[in-house]
Amino acid sequence: MAEHKSFGSDNHAGAHEAVLRAVLEANDGDAVAYGADDWTRRATAELRRAFRADGDVFLVFNGSAANILGLSLLLRRHEAVICADSAHINTDECGAAERILGTKLLTIPAPDGKLTPEVIAEQLSARGDDHRAQPGAVAITQATELGTCYSLAELREVSDFCRASDLRLYIDGARLANAAAFLDCSLAELAGCADVLSFGGTKNGAIGAEAVIVMNEGLAADAPYLRKQQLQLASKMRYLAVQFLALTEGDLWRHNASHANRMARRLADGVRDVPGVGIRFPVQSDAVFARLDPRHIETLQREWFFYVWDEETSVVRWMTAFDTTEEEVDEFAASIRKAARGSASR
Amino acid sequence: MAEHKSFGSDNHAGAHEAVLRAVLEANDGDAVAYGADDWTRRATAELRRAFRADGDVFLVFNGSAANILGLSLLLRRHEAVICADSAHINTDECGAAERILGTKLLTIPAPDGKLTPEVIAEQLSARGDDHRAQPGAVAITQATELGTCYSLAELREVSDFCRASDLRLYIDGARLANAAAFLDCSLAELAGCADVLSFGGTKNGAIGAEAVIVMNEGLAADAPYLRKQQLQLASKMRYLAVQFLALTEGDLWRHNASHANRMARRLADGVRDVPGVGIRFPVQSDAVFARLDPRHIETLQREWFFYVWDEETSVVRWMTAFDTTEEEVDEFAASIRKAARGSASR
Amino acid sequence: MAEHKSFGSDNHAGAHEAVLRAVLEANDGDAVAYGADDWTRRATAELRRAFRADGDVFLVFNGSAANILGLSLLLRRHEAVICADSAHINTDECGAAERILGTKLLTIPAPDGKLTPEVIAEQLSARGDDHRAQPGAVAITQATELGTCYSLAELREVSDFCRASDLRLYIDGARLANAAAFLDCSLAELAGCADVLSFGGTKNGAIGAEAVIVMNEGLAADAPYLRKQQLQLASKMRYLAVQFLALTEGDLWRHNASHANRMARRLADGVRDVPGVGIRFPVQSDAVFARLDPRHIETLQREWFFYVWDEETSVVRWMTAFDTTEEEVDEFAASIRKAARGSASR
Amino acid sequence: MAEHKSFGSDNHAGAHEAVLRAVLEANDGDAVAYGADDWTRRATAELRRAFRADGDVFLVFNGSAANILGLSLLLRRHEAVICADSAHINTDECGAAERILGTKLLTIPAPDGKLTPEVIAEQLSARGDDHRAQPGAVAITQATELGTCYSLAELREVSDFCRASDLRLYIDGARLANAAAFLDCSLAELAGCADVLSFGGTKNGAIGAEAVIVMNEGLAADAPYLRKQQLQLASKMRYLAVQFLALTEGDLWRHNASHANRMARRLADGVRDVPGVGIRFPVQSDAVFARLDPRHIETLQREWFFYVWDEETSVVRWMTAFDTTEEEVDEFAASIRKAARGSASR
Repeated sequence: MAEHKSFGSDNHAGAHEAVLRAVLEANDGDAVAYGADDWTRRATAELRRAFRADGDVFLVFNGSAANILGLSLLLRRHEAVICADSAHINTDECGAAERILGTKLLTIPAPDGKLTPEVIAEQLSARGDDHRAQPGAVAITQATELGTCYSLAELREVSDFCRASDLRLYIDGARLANAAAFLDCSLAELAGCADVLSFGGTKNGAIGAEAVIVMNEGLAADAPYLRKQQLQLASKMRYLAVQFLALTEGDLWRHNASHANRMARRLADGVRDVPGVGIRFPVQSDAVFARLDPRHIETLQREWFFYVWDEETSVVRWMTAFDTTEEEVDEFAASIRKAARGSASR
Repeated sequence: MAEHKSFGSDNHAGAHEAVLRAVLEANDGDAVAYGADDWTRRATAELRRAFRADGDVFLVFNGSAANILGLSLLLRRHEAVICADSAHINTDECGAAERILGTKLLTIPAPDGKLTPEVIAEQLSARGDDHRAQPGAVAITQATELGTCYSLAELREVSDFCRASDLRLYIDGARLANAAAFLDCSLAELAGCADVLSFGGTKNGAIGAEAVIVMNEGLAADAPYLRKQQLQLASKMRYLAVQFLALTEGDLWRHNASHANRMARRLADGVRDVPGVGIRFPVQSDAVFARLDPRHIETLQREWFFYVWDEETSVVRWMTAFDTTEEEVDEFAASIRKAARGSASR
Repeated sequence: MAEHKSFGSDNHAGAHEAVLRAVLEANDGDAVAYGADDWTRRATAELRRAFRADGDVFLVFNGSAANILGLSLLLRRHEAVICADSAHINTDECGAAERILGTKLLTIPAPDGKLTPEVIAEQLSARGDDHRAQPGAVAITQATELGTCYSLAELREVSDFCRASDLRLYIDGARLANAAAFLDCSLAELAGCADVLSFGGTKNGAIGAEAVIVMNEGLAADAPYLRKQQLQLASKMRYLAVQFLALTEGDLWRHNASHANRMARRLADGVRDVPGVGIRFPVQSDAVFARLDPRHIETLQREWFFYVWDEETSVVRWMTAFDTTEEEVDEFAASIRKAARGSASR
Repeated sequence: MAEHKSFGSDNHAGAHEAVLRAVLEANDGDAVAYGADDWTRRATAELRRAFRADGDVFLVFNGSAANILGLSLLLRRHEAVICADSAHINTDECGAAERILGTKLLTIPAPDGKLTPEVIAEQLSARGDDHRAQPGAVAITQATELGTCYSLAELREVSDFCRASDLRLYIDGARLANAAAFLDCSLAELAGCADVLSFGGTKNGAIGAEAVIVMNEGLAADAPYLRKQQLQLASKMRYLAVQFLALTEGDLWRHNASHANRMARRLADGVRDVPGVGIRFPVQSDAVFARLDPRHIETLQREWFFYVWDEETSVVRWMTAFDTTEEEVDEFAASIRKAARGSASR
């Protein structure tokens, strides 16, 4: 890793010290394995409470696993999933949905990463035709892979449409904390519209832990078996559980997410007026997407770590994290400004 | 958890302090995610060296996942797996092999948990018959689920038979450390006969980390993609990696396993002469299986945590761990003795 | 094929002339594909009526496909199937249940091919334990792979137990006609206890056609999509449908099955007293299993086609068909007698 | 079915009389089941010869099954398939590729149904990235779902690119006969560029039979087991085999396809000048796609059976078959003309 703070991803950061402290404290003698311990009981109770979930909460190892477990609770054996073409389950999980669930993804172009009732409705025309994959669930991401957030009103519209259309609704909440921070709402307000959702710890300061939140009691019954089959049952579960205990204690998750969001906005604001830099998408979480001259990208990447999102359109992604500092942001913004100017002066 | 040390499982123990220390030390700034970091490079290099593996090493979250990933490298799409009926993949993974790999398990009764060329050979009679599941790999466990170990000679026999019979050999090494300690051999000596094997960290003092060791270079190419599809790619991989760095440092794994093995032998030796206690299976790792009067079991379980292995035959399993002390063993042995005597005196 | 009638299998026979006639008659101009034709409507209505099925009827290509489709209607995503170890789904479908359904088969030794509530109950001890495969359905075969039949009382016992135990019941009815003929009961009487069952045409004089009968309306909704996914939707469906129209016309299926059963009994009766020939299992359908000296088997197979069922115990299987004649049976019986005597005289 | 000839699909037609005759002739006594009979040997030998296939030929029940079996021979366990978004495997198989193979389809917009090296190349940018689905095969359709044909030069370009890019090439040949007829080339010329392809009988006058042609010997080894697992092993295989014997006898397949192609051209030519009728795509097989005023469609469908292909763009599909007559075409063309005029005059 370069000496500079990484703007590559919110999972390039380490773990929050409170999380590590919790892990150390949990290392206290024996505990029954596979979740039958007090830490797990407390963590899942805490999450149930925070989400006002009537169902149950299942801890898993990572975000892809949360998505697969969550969707497997919502799909009948033959059903397909409607999602944005930019959805993590479509682009970044190596085909896990197809391989592990056997489900087809009915993808929809979504320029800002968000689905609407209108575009979902277009996927329903072949219902009842046994030649065509039958959608059973809609999967949205909040905050989206493009750093945008559904407003509560937008969420409600999608949710209302799904309920009226016999479609279950899953939310990939790998960055749900960032959305709650941006929208200044509770986790329960975000979750109310979903049948099942994930709540990401990893990108929020955990070592590695994600929660699958089952909102409706009736949907949780198969989850223990599906979690085990999907290779997500931790034997020393306490070490997953305490990460969530740390993140929920005093709403540390919100503190972490708010900070990361603020750093992203600070970065965007710091370079918005730089000639040759075009901010793409509203900055509503911890990601800034920007169009940049390929030469500037090259220059910048010599010193800073970040990813090119789209070679063709020359768009990069800059991500902040719970531990990004104002100084790091300002220094990075200055580098961007300098790279753009330097090149402009040629 | 009861106040007494658990003899329920080697995963009831916490993590070794060296593992925790390594996790803390790894929390040092940014690291590229998904394994492209120095800790991961060092850990996998260390494991490759220890196993003399020509292929590669892939870290995953738990033992079931290691088994599924390992087998998926060895099986053609249609093939089945030969294993003992007591194999963890058959009895304790909720059908993951069938669900995730789609593979049939051709199970063989194995009174001591071990397979021999003779019993494997019996599963080959239907080769070439397209109505019958076609075995492509043999999966053995070392140490076995019954606490026994294959000797190096037995391993070689199984391995030679597999090679001669176009069967690939997988070793479930969730307790490979215990086998190496018992046999007083190197990991490489155990691994030499296998095509792919797992090396368990979790039962050896890790928080939760397992390694899939690919012995032959040609078998490793698909593993990165299969690991991701099987939901086992950790984003903050460094925290898995450092657990193995801690365990391999000064062969801590062997120290931990030897100790646990010694405690199991001490326990077995301490109760072997107790009337009404019948030790089942040679005690060759960290497990002691014993037949006990159901009333004694009930009495004991009021104070001590352990599992009944087989209700019908009234056999229990007692497991030690890296952190079990001689005092705990002796106290437990005394309790067993007392329970047996107490009841005998009625 | 040897010049003699095959006693190898009931699918070595050709098709019944009424079936072929029906196929010719169906070749009458255009018909909408995929089952939206009159022949299909009539055939499925006829089968619904014969089985008194509240659900629906789905035609598929072969018996394995019927089993997979049938079970897929009964299993939740994670569930396993309880069956006899001699079940066709376990021994003769190349692992299709595991591969296509992802389901584990919890197999039970069943000396006469039949399950009882007692042996099924033993598979339920691990319910609720997320490490163990969870049984969701019981699959039985009627007539069994060993030529035996469940009596109506036995069926009811299994069925009552399943309902009381939240297990769905599937019947592999590849030879259901033979069972109905043997028990002298209606198809509806056999089906009443099942949730879903198959009704085999192929072994009963069809070219190749099987029906999946869904007894309960609520279970049929997903079947069209699952049938298509499972590659069983015939485009020119009429040619499957008319085979069943021919077989149900005047209960031709019962005529065919009764005849085959009678021929099997005639064969068994004809050789029962031959020294060295030991009839295994009650002859209750169109199969005769017999223990025979390996040398006699070899002698006989020079002239007659049949399969050795079990090399080790030297048991052979002789099957009759709708078109086996009394003369063929008598000639075969004479050959068996001669082979046994010839060898005995050595 | 309406009294008029259906222009709905080439599978609305019945079977060719030569196919039926062959089925009757095959009904001649016993035959060993599952393909070990002379008819099957002859049919597969005939197909191997016609395709100059070094591998083997496997008969299956329908086109979806041929596609799944074919692709399963070409894909490593984790790999994805590149195909046109209009590909039958993507749009018309209810998600079978995802469900049965577990494979992701990487779909490419293809206005005329055809892929080119350029558009395939764009799907390769994420190779080696374990987050992204890894393409292992390209699937094209010949003739395409839009009635167009790849020229031999175009095929070669795609094939050369695939070979140079470590991509295997599958051809969905449900209408390969129509392509061979249109291109006036041999089946071997079409097949030379593929690794595996299907050859459709059903749309060419069969009752229901498709062949999977494995061009390379090394790819055929697993096919028998995969065919069985995929529920495609016919017990009375002879009845599939003789359909191909009939179709290959004197190249009946070419006669049938040429006729159907000619009828499609005649139809297109007959309405090309009708105001308000816009022929879409070159007419290169047995399908005519036309843009038509929605009111004309409605009028026409009162008397004639055909499908609307795309509601939104008001495009219909008219298909001919081996048994479509010139009179039927002319009558249909007259109806189209009349419907268009009638409406135009309003």
